[in-house]
Amino acid sequence: MNNENTLLDFEIDAGGKGLGALPARQRAGEIAQLGWQLLAEDLSLPVAVLSQRRIEHNLAWMKAFINRYRVQLAPHGKTTMSPQLFRKQLDHGAWGITLATAPQAQAAYNHGVRRMLMANQLVGRGNMAIIARLQHDPEFTFYGIVDSAENIAQLGRHFLEADQTLKVLVELGVNGGRTGARDEAQEAALLAEIARWPSLQLCGIELYEGVLKDEADIRAFLRRAVARCAAWAAEGRFAAGPVLLSGAGSAWFDIVAEEFCNADIGRPLEVILRPGCYLTHDVGIYKAAETRIQANNPVARDMNRALLPALQLWAYVTSLPEPGLAIIGLGKRDAAFDAGLPVPALHHRPGNAAPTPAPEGWALTAMMDQHAFMAVPIDHGLKVGDMIAFDISHPCLTFDKWRQLPILDDDYRVVELVQTCF
Amino acid sequence: MNNENTLLDFEIDAGGKGLGALPARQRAGEIAQLGWQLLAEDLSLPVAVLSQRRIEHNLAWMKAFINRYRVQLAPHGKTTMSPQLFRKQLDHGAWGITLATAPQAQAAYNHGVRRMLMANQLVGRGNMAIIARLQHDPEFTFYGIVDSAENIAQLGRHFLEADQTLKVLVELGVNGGRTGARDEAQEAALLAEIARWPSLQLCGIELYEGVLKDEADIRAFLRRAVARCAAWAAEGRFAAGPVLLSGAGSAWFDIVAEEFCNADIGRPLEVILRPGCYLTHDVGIYKAAETRIQANNPVARDMNRALLPALQLWAYVTSLPEPGLAIIGLGKRDAAFDAGLPVPALHHRPGNAAPTPAPEGWALTAMMDQHAFMAVPIDHGLKVGDMIAFDISHPCLTFDKWRQLPILDDDYRVVELVQTCF
Repeated sequence: MNNENTLLDFEIDAGGKGLGALPARQRAGEIAQLGWQLLAEDLSLPVAVLSQRRIEHNLAWMKAFINRYRVQLAPHGKTTMSPQLFRKQLDHGAWGITLATAPQAQAAYNHGVRRMLMANQLVGRGNMAIIARLQHDPEFTFYGIVDSAENIAQLGRHFLEADQTLKVLVELGVNGGRTGARDEAQEAALLAEIARWPSLQLCGIELYEGVLKDEADIRAFLRRAVARCAAWAAEGRFAAGPVLLSGAGSAWFDIVAEEFCNADIGRPLEVILRPGCYLTHDVGIYKAAETRIQANNPVARDMNRALLPALQLWAYVTSLPEPGLAIIGLGKRDAAFDAGLPVPALHHRPGNAAPTPAPEGWALTAMMDQHAFMAVPIDHGLKVGDMIAFDISHPCLTFDKWRQLPILDDDYRVVELVQTCF
Repeated sequence: MNNENTLLDFEIDAGGKGLGALPARQRAGEIAQLGWQLLAEDLSLPVAVLSQRRIEHNLAWMKAFINRYRVQLAPHGKTTMSPQLFRKQLDHGAWGITLATAPQAQAAYNHGVRRMLMANQLVGRGNMAIIARLQHDPEFTFYGIVDSAENIAQLGRHFLEADQTLKVLVELGVNGGRTGARDEAQEAALLAEIARWPSLQLCGIELYEGVLKDEADIRAFLRRAVARCAAWAAEGRFAAGPVLLSGAGSAWFDIVAEEFCNADIGRPLEVILRPGCYLTHDVGIYKAAETRIQANNPVARDMNRALLPALQLWAYVTSLPEPGLAIIGLGKRDAAFDAGLPVPALHHRPGNAAPTPAPEGWALTAMMDQHAFMAVPIDHGLKVGDMIAFDISHPCLTFDKWRQLPILDDDYRVVELVQTCF
C-alpha cells in the first residue's frame, strides 16, 4: 500500500450510522471482504449509499466534457468533502479541488490533495494560520479569492509576517448577488491594495455565476470577466505564469465552458470550472439544471448519455399507525430537505429477490429530525420493516449528514466505504 | 485517568472545522493547555461554542426540576449526540440517556452509557443485530418501543434466535400524530403479539406529546397513558419490576411532569422524562416553549431563573459588497435553518477589549451552504474580518453540523472540547 492509499484508508467508526454490527476493529480498505449486501439487511438503515457504476459514469462524463472544451476541472469539494471521492476526481483528470473554507482545505491536504482553490474569502487569523502552515509544504499550491481591500490588507500583513506569498484571484460579483466586486471602481481599489503587498500575487479572476438565474445575464457576467481578464493582462496586473479564470457551479458549467473556452487575453490562460454536484447528481435541482444542459449544449448532446443520480438513501417503514400514513425512519438528520424532500424510488421487502419501483402515489409530506411522513394510498400493501430507497435533491446537504458512505455494486453489495470530513 | 475518562477523551481531529492550526497530535483532554481564546482569533471561524457557565446552570436547573417532581430524567441524546455532554447529564442525576436509533445507542454505549431508552421503533435486521450485540454486556440495560404487531413479531423472532430478552414499552399515539397506537383495538393487538413471545418483556408505556400543540389535548393524552398503564398493571400485562411511564420532549416536559408525577397504578412506577434541548436551550422554538413554562409552572417559577441559551455560533464578516449587505461566513452547513435563521447577538472587532451587543437592525435574510446574507443599515460600521456571534433556534440541527465543539469560560477561553457522534 503506497503512502497515498494509507492516507485514504481509515479505521471504520464502529459507532457510525449506516453500518451494521461490525466485527471488531475494521479498516475501510477491508470492507468488501465482509460481503455485506444492502437488501439482505447487513447494513443499519437509514443509510446513504453511492452507486459504483453511476459514480464512474459521471466521472467519465465530466472528463469527456472538460476535454472537449479544453478547460480544467477543480470540482467543488464542499459537496462531498470525501477524500476518497476527491481521489477519483483527480484520477479522472481534475486539475485540483475547490474548497470553501480553510478547515476544508486542511482536511483535503491531510488526505493528499496538493493543488486547490478556495472559492471563498480567507478571513481571520485562525484561518490564515491554517493556510500558512499548509504552505510550508513546497508541493502545496493554494489560490484564495479576494473582494475587499480590508481583507487584502489583512492577508498581505499575515503572509508578509509569515514570510510567504499568497496567490489570490479577484472575485467579480453582480449587484444583488453574493460576494465579489460589483464595478470597476471596486475592482480598482482591490488592484491597488494587492499591488501594495509583496506577499500577495494576483493570479487571475474568479466568479460564481450561480447567483444569477437568467442565461443572458450569466453570459454577460462571464463576458465581463473575460474582458477584465484581458484588460488586467494588458495592464500587467497579473503575476508571472498562466492566468487563472474560474467560474461554474453545478447548474451552469456548460455556459461557463462555452464562454471561457475561447477567451483570448493575449497570454496563457487556464480556465478552471468548479462544479461539485456532477459526481452524484440528483433528481431535484441539478436534474432540472441538466435538462437545460442536455437541451442546449451541443457537447453534452453529442455525448448522448446524461449524468446519473448516484446517491440514494435507504430507510425502513417504521410505523403504519393510521390509514394513508407510513412513518419512515429517515429524518432531517439524514437528508437534505431545503430543495425538495427525498423522493421514493424503490420498494423492497426483505426476503424478496429484488426491489420494485415505488408507486407514483407515495410521497414524503414532512420530515422531523429522525422521521419522515409518507403519504400512501389506503391499499398501500406496505409492512413495517419494508425498505424504501429515496432519491434526493441537493447532494451537498445530504453528504454532510453522513460520516461514512458505502459504495454499492449493481447487486447492492458493499464494495467500498468512503468517509467525509465536514 | 480511569477507564471512563479514557472512553471520553479523544484525539482531536486536526482537519475538523472550528479549530485553529493545532500543534501536532493533540488529545481533547489537553486542549485547555493551549490557552486558546476565541476573541484573540485562536479558533477558525465559523465555530459553534458552548458556554461552560450556562451549561452548568441548565444542568443544575433540570436536576432541581426533576427532584422537585420526583421523576427520572433520560435526556434525549439525539440533540447533542455528545458523549462528554451525556456524562455531564448522568453526573447531574440522569437515570439514563434516550437515543433515537440503534447506531446512536451503539455510539452512546461505546462511550460508557449503560442504561438507555430508544424512543423509536427498532426495525430491521442490521439494527436489531447492533442492539443484540450490546446486550451481551450484562451491565447494559436497553428499552425499545413498539407500535406494530408486525414489528413485535420481527423483534420476538430476532431476540429469540439470539437467546436474549428485549425490554419494550408500548408507544401510544394520537390521530393525526406520528407513531404510536391510536386506540384500544390497536393496543390490544400489540399486547396479544407481545404475549406470544417469551423473548419480549413489556416494561411500560411511552408517548411523545410534542406532536400535539394544545395543552388540553396534551393533558388528555397523558391521562390516557396513565389510565392504560393502570389498566395493564391490573391485568398483569407488565413484566416484573417497576413499570416505566415515559414522555416529554423539550417543549412540554413541565406538563408531563405534572400529569405523571402522582400517577398511581397500584404498583411501583418510574416516570421517565426525555427532554434533550434544555442542556443548551436556544432563543427560538425552545425559548418560546420556556416562556410558557415560566408563566404557568409553579416549580419553574419557584426556581426563579430560567434556562439559558448556551450554544452560539461565531462567524466572520467575509464581504461587504454593496450598501446594506454583509456576507457572513456561516451557512446551512453550520447552523439549523428550519426553525428560524440564526440571530445576531454580539459584535467583536479583533483587537477590541470585548464584544458589544449586535444592534437591532442586523438580521440574517437568507443562507446558502457556506454563506449567510445579513441585512444591515447603510451606516453599519462593519469591517471585513469583524466577528459576529449568533444565537440559534433548534439546537438538534445545529449540533449535527459539528463534530467537535469547544466549551468556553466567561473569558472566551477554551476550557474543554466535546465531540459529537452523529
